[in-house]
Amino acid sequence: MIPTLKDVQSAVKRIGPLVHNTPVLTSSTIDRMMNATVFFKCENFQRMGAFKIRGATNAILQLSKDERARGVITHSSGNFAAALALAASSLNTKAYIVMPSNAPAVKREAVAGYGAQIIECAPTLKSRESTTLKHQNKLGATFVHPSNDLNVILGNSTAVWELAKKAENLDVVIAPVGGGGLLAGTALATNYLHYYIETIGAEPFGADDAYLSLKTGKIQPSINPKTIADGLKTQLGDKNFPIIQKFVSKIIRVEESEIIEAMKFIWERMKIVIEPSSAVAVAAMFRNKTDFKNRRVGVIISGGNVDLSNLPF
Amino acid sequence: MIPTLKDVQSAVKRIGPLVHNTPVLTSSTIDRMMNATVFFKCENFQRMGAFKIRGATNAILQLSKDERARGVITHSSGNFAAALALAASSLNTKAYIVMPSNAPAVKREAVAGYGAQIIECAPTLKSRESTTLKHQNKLGATFVHPSNDLNVILGNSTAVWELAKKAENLDVVIAPVGGGGLLAGTALATNYLHYYIETIGAEPFGADDAYLSLKTGKIQPSINPKTIADGLKTQLGDKNFPIIQKFVSKIIRVEESEIIEAMKFIWERMKIVIEPSSAVAVAAMFRNKTDFKNRRVGVIISGGNVDLSNLPF
Repeated sequence: MIPTLKDVQSAVKRIGPLVHNTPVLTSSTIDRMMNATVFFKCENFQRMGAFKIRGATNAILQLSKDERARGVITHSSGNFAAALALAASSLNTKAYIVMPSNAPAVKREAVAGYGAQIIECAPTLKSRESTTLKHQNKLGATFVHPSNDLNVILGNSTAVWELAKKAENLDVVIAPVGGGGLLAGTALATNYLHYYIETIGAEPFGADDAYLSLKTGKIQPSINPKTIADGLKTQLGDKNFPIIQKFVSKIIRVEESEIIEAMKFIWERMKIVIEPSSAVAVAAMFRNKTDFKNRRVGVIISGGNVDLSNLPF
Repeated sequence: MIPTLKDVQSAVKRIGPLVHNTPVLTSSTIDRMMNATVFFKCENFQRMGAFKIRGATNAILQLSKDERARGVITHSSGNFAAALALAASSLNTKAYIVMPSNAPAVKREAVAGYGAQIIECAPTLKSRESTTLKHQNKLGATFVHPSNDLNVILGNSTAVWELAKKAENLDVVIAPVGGGGLLAGTALATNYLHYYIETIGAEPFGADDAYLSLKTGKIQPSINPKTIADGLKTQLGDKNFPIIQKFVSKIIRVEESEIIEAMKFIWERMKIVIEPSSAVAVAAMFRNKTDFKNRRVGVIISGGNVDLSNLPF
C-alpha cells in the first residue's frame, strides 16, 4: 500500500520539531555549467550528518507507548545506526544496534556516544539477521529497517517537502539510491506536490541493482557491490520498490571516477563536506546534462559523514 | 583618519549587489561545548571563496571613471589576487596581478581564469614591490593594497555588519588577523552598531606580529612567520593599526596543533570546508572558553580555499 498525501503531511508535522530544516544552497558556477537552476538540499547539515534521522525519528514516533518502552532495534554499520541511536536518545527510547565485529571503531563510538546499546555479530548478512531476530524476540524491541519501512520512507520524504517549500516550481529532483528509502520517500513527496516534479535516481555502476530492478520489474539483489559510495551498497525492498516503480522516471548510473570528481568539485567550489553517496547524485547530474537543461533542479545531498583521514583525493 | 559610521553604511550599500550576503550557521554541539551561542559568518561561501572580494570590490568602486579605465594592480599570491581579479572582471576593469615566479599553478590559473593579467616577479618582497611600482607607473593603474587600504578595510567591514543583522545582540566577535584588513574592518563596523560588541583578534603563535604590535604600541614586522595559516603571515599597516589599537580588545594566540584540530572539527561536525586562517579564529575561541562563556559570539569564517590534495590531517 502506497502512503497518501496526508501521510506525508503528517510526517512533516510529526518530525518537524525534532530535525533540522536544513539549508538550501545554490551555486552560480554550477548553474552556468548546467544551464539550469540547481538547488541543493543540504542534509549533510542534518543532525548526525545525514537525512537518516528523519526516517528514524518518524518510525519511533509511530510506536505505541508500550512499544516505545521496550525500545527499537536495527542492524546497520552506517548512518542509520547513528540515526536510530540519536533519534531514540532524543525520544527517551532505548536503541539496540546490531553491528558486525569488524565495524570501524569511529562508527561504534558514534553509536555508543548517543547512548545506544551495541550488540556485536559476525560480519555476515546471515549473522546480522539472526542476531537481530534473536535479540528482537528476547527484548521485545521493535525492528526498524533502515530503508524498507513505510514510516522510515515517510520520514525521509520530508526532506524534499522542505526543499520544495524553499525552492518553488522545481521541475526535477535527483536523489541517490541504495536501499531505496530516500529515493522512495523523495518520489512519494514530489508526487503529492500540487505540480508535477520528475524524480530521478542516481546509482553507481558498481552497485546498480536498483537500475536493474527497474529494468526487469523485479527487485534484483545487490551482489558483491563495488563502490566508494558505501551507503549505496544495499538493495531495494518490497515496501520501497513499488513506490520507486510508480514514481521514479529513471535511474542514472555513474562511474567511480565521476563520483570522486563530483565530490571534490563540491568540496572545492561549494565549500561543503559531502559524502560519496551524495556525490553520486551530483555526478549523475553532471553526466546527463541534457536531462536538466533549462530546468529547476533539486539535488538531495544525503549526508556528509566522511573519514577525513581516508579521502579519495 | 578613522572612517565614520556613514562610511561603513555607504560601503554596505555600495558593494551589496556585487557580493553574497553569506549564510550564518550555528552548531548546537559547539554551543554546548562553549556554554555560549555561536554564530558563524560563512565567508567561505563568498564569491571566490573568501571575504576578500568585499574589500576588492569596494576599492574598485571608489575609483574615478578615468582610474577605472586604467585598471588596478596589486601584488599577492593568495586570496586577494583572486579577489581583485574577480572584482575587476565583474566591474569591467582591467586587473594586473604581480605574482612571484614560484606561486602555485592553481593560484595562477584562478587569477588568469578571472581574466586578470599576471606579471611575474622574483619570489622576494623587494622584487614584488619594485615590479609592482614599475608597472603601476607604466600602466597608470591604481595600486590596491590587500589589507592596508581604507576602502579595502571598509569593504571588509560589511561582513560583520551583515552578521549583526542576522544574529542580533552579539556580545563579542572574533576574527583572524594577518595583514589586519579583516580585523580592522570587523572592529570598525562593530564599533558603530547601536550596542557595544567586543572585538577579539586571533593569531597563530608562529606569526604573532599583531599581538606584539598591540603590546608594544608599534607595528612589528612579521619576520620569518611559521604557520599553516598562510593567509596570516603578513603584517599590519599604518591604515589598519590605529583602528585595531582603538577598537580591538585583545588578540588570542593559538598553537599550530590547535589550528589543525579546530579545522578538522569544523569540517567533521559542521560539514563546511574552512581554510586554516579561519580555523585560527575557531581555535582561539576553543582555547579561551572563559572569554566567551554565556555570551552571543560571532566568528568570522574568513574563507574556504584549501588544496584538497595537501591536507594537514
